[in-house]
Amino acid sequence: MMRTRPLKVALLGCGVVGSEVTRIMTTHADDLAARIGAPVELAGIAVRRPDRVRAGVPAELITTDATALVKRGDIDVVIEVIGGIEPARTLITTAFEHGASVVSANKALVAADGAALHAAAEANGADLYYEAAVAGAIPLVRPLRESLAGDKVNRVLGIVNGTTNFILDKMDSTGAGYSEALDEATALGYAEADPTADVEGFDAAAKAAILAGIAFHTRVTIDDVHREGLTEVTAADIASAKRMGCTVKLLAICERAADGASVTARVHPAMIPLTHPLASVREAYNAVFVESDAAGQLMFYGPGAGGAPTASAVLGDLVAVCRNKLAGATGPGESAYTRLPVSPMGEVVTRYHISLDVADKPGVLAQVATIFAEHGVSIDTVRQQGKDGEASLVVVTHRAADAALSSTVGALRELDTVRGVASIMRVEGE
Amino acid sequence: MMRTRPLKVALLGCGVVGSEVTRIMTTHADDLAARIGAPVELAGIAVRRPDRVRAGVPAELITTDATALVKRGDIDVVIEVIGGIEPARTLITTAFEHGASVVSANKALVAADGAALHAAAEANGADLYYEAAVAGAIPLVRPLRESLAGDKVNRVLGIVNGTTNFILDKMDSTGAGYSEALDEATALGYAEADPTADVEGFDAAAKAAILAGIAFHTRVTIDDVHREGLTEVTAADIASAKRMGCTVKLLAICERAADGASVTARVHPAMIPLTHPLASVREAYNAVFVESDAAGQLMFYGPGAGGAPTASAVLGDLVAVCRNKLAGATGPGESAYTRLPVSPMGEVVTRYHISLDVADKPGVLAQVATIFAEHGVSIDTVRQQGKDGEASLVVVTHRAADAALSSTVGALRELDTVRGVASIMRVEGE
Repeated sequence: MMRTRPLKVALLGCGVVGSEVTRIMTTHADDLAARIGAPVELAGIAVRRPDRVRAGVPAELITTDATALVKRGDIDVVIEVIGGIEPARTLITTAFEHGASVVSANKALVAADGAALHAAAEANGADLYYEAAVAGAIPLVRPLRESLAGDKVNRVLGIVNGTTNFILDKMDSTGAGYSEALDEATALGYAEADPTADVEGFDAAAKAAILAGIAFHTRVTIDDVHREGLTEVTAADIASAKRMGCTVKLLAICERAADGASVTARVHPAMIPLTHPLASVREAYNAVFVESDAAGQLMFYGPGAGGAPTASAVLGDLVAVCRNKLAGATGPGESAYTRLPVSPMGEVVTRYHISLDVADKPGVLAQVATIFAEHGVSIDTVRQQGKDGEASLVVVTHRAADAALSSTVGALRELDTVRGVASIMRVEGE
Repeated sequence: MMRTRPLKVALLGCGVVGSEVTRIMTTHADDLAARIGAPVELAGIAVRRPDRVRAGVPAELITTDATALVKRGDIDVVIEVIGGIEPARTLITTAFEHGASVVSANKALVAADGAALHAAAEANGADLYYEAAVAGAIPLVRPLRESLAGDKVNRVLGIVNGTTNFILDKMDSTGAGYSEALDEATALGYAEADPTADVEGFDAAAKAAILAGIAFHTRVTIDDVHREGLTEVTAADIASAKRMGCTVKLLAICERAADGASVTARVHPAMIPLTHPLASVREAYNAVFVESDAAGQLMFYGPGAGGAPTASAVLGDLVAVCRNKLAGATGPGESAYTRLPVSPMGEVVTRYHISLDVADKPGVLAQVATIFAEHGVSIDTVRQQGKDGEASLVVVTHRAADAALSSTVGALRELDTVRGVASIMRVEGE
């Protein structure tokens, strides 16, 4: 049954992921051929720095002309592991125009421009697969897009950035502050020299956009995602979470509104109960909870980054795309038929943990409670601590709209007796 | 882009799962049509007892003649949720011969006869999908078969039976014995009136066979799976596990041998460390760990049974199979090219926890240790407890072949000073 003419693959980018893809395609060529039904051949590898030594990467395949490679005309599949918007976008579009299908690990590009890329794939009868763009090796895109295709997903709640989970886990387990934990993450290679994309939540926001779009069969771009990083999380926040039986995680949360008419997508630090399965996700691991009507609660857990795990996801897609090529078919494309609008953050309904520095005198709690009531935010618990004329109030609310909470906090800041709002953190997973 | 002629679906069986499939196909018809690219129509439902009231199931679709239904000639997809070997096998084969693809939730049949069913599907250009056969709603078949198709899976370790996990969880959390915990499971509907298939491990063994075959690209039937149920697990075993920082779970374990030349598949109770993610899987939930070369450790968690979760898996497969039909293609079929043999239990290498009742006199430990040494089983730790002439020895070994451990235990029973072997349990997940 095996076809003998090989399928030709062009690889764009040969860094940590690309090198692993090359290694596995070389060492496991027989397995890949058996699983696809035809041999696959690496026909060219486009890189920016051809002089860099790449162990195990055939030198004769290296080229600096990525455009010429995707235009060759005999390429069946292009694997894009360059990252970033350009030149990746133009190269992928060119690949489609020349008859190739594309496997990409590029979360930024898919989150920014997924609809246009899917349209280009469809117009050319090609596939666009990107399992590796979300949570590394963890199968998420395929389960959401295919396994749950007969179900109604209501919520996706996940830890999708390993760097920030490593930092928060260190802060939680050692009592370290943010800077100290970031330094350790950098020293161990979990954080990049410029950690902005991770710690400011851009990376997680891109993944949230992709997950929300697939889960709710609509279009969500990174611009639709409310984003807060973890740079302002303090050791005091973590300690406060512990007192509540919680821990702090940077979460990506995609939800269908209660009335089903809109969706929300957001990334921010949040307290979750220690009893929640996501609370025990340690170090740089990722995990994603999916809640749906029929399946109930599912969780997917594994390494969210790294060369080999990301290559595993890329090669799983490569096998699928090659099988589709041989069958003369394409896999599932974009499914965005619901066209559900993305609501702004103010409409998100959740719970809040607010720490206030207040004057230590009678009547302060009554004043604060009045402000909450006036803005329609119901208080669940209050903890009061005071000494030497200084005091703190920790308020945990019932569920309320984010806009109502913001107004409440604005009004609290106006009170003479409130000296400062030490922190506001959402409480999730209950 | 939507085709207007509907795809016709025949449903075989309308119990807990079939009723949910019918309900979702009816209430979410528009979503299914949008995701498939054509409407799907329930064309007939075959049942044994047509007089049983089925809320929400259209009476005019009910028939008792399943054979006539699958032979109609206009059926695109047959959903089989009858269970058992016959008549399911004959009906599925007949469905293939009449041009239909098949979605099945039938673990017993796939584990007994998967190769022949796949061959029949392939001979007729049809699909055979069975995500619902393993661990209910948890996507496992598709991730193993597709997402990890470019990786090398070395180990699958999972809790794949909810009834037995509920029983063991109760024993662990309340100190109850097996019978008492089984009674509670029965009262709550987690165990059937005849719990044999669950508590003797037949259900888990079928799932282990399916997972091993897919994970290692070979053929494994239920007869290849070593099976021990949990009826002999005692409260003392659970207490002993706790003293070791472990809990007891009924595990399905599929492994590639260290030399890569064979595989093993087994189901038995085992101690696992409390720090292992599977240790915290409570009540009737299922979870499966997958270890592969490139992806590393992945875990999939969710409800392993129940009408709605199983229906979710069935409908995910239905959407995939319908898309394949529309594309004139088939999805991935059987992948068994490695033809790796399944080794017997004696060749499995793991650790053991052995409780012995011994005479409380000097020299017993030396005798026992000599027996272990003579059989090449290295001891990790020994704990000795004694009073009033009676004593117990608890031995935990290093890794050893199961055959060597069996010989060791046989020789121990011959010793005058060993009054009995109270329990033997394997230790996994370290």
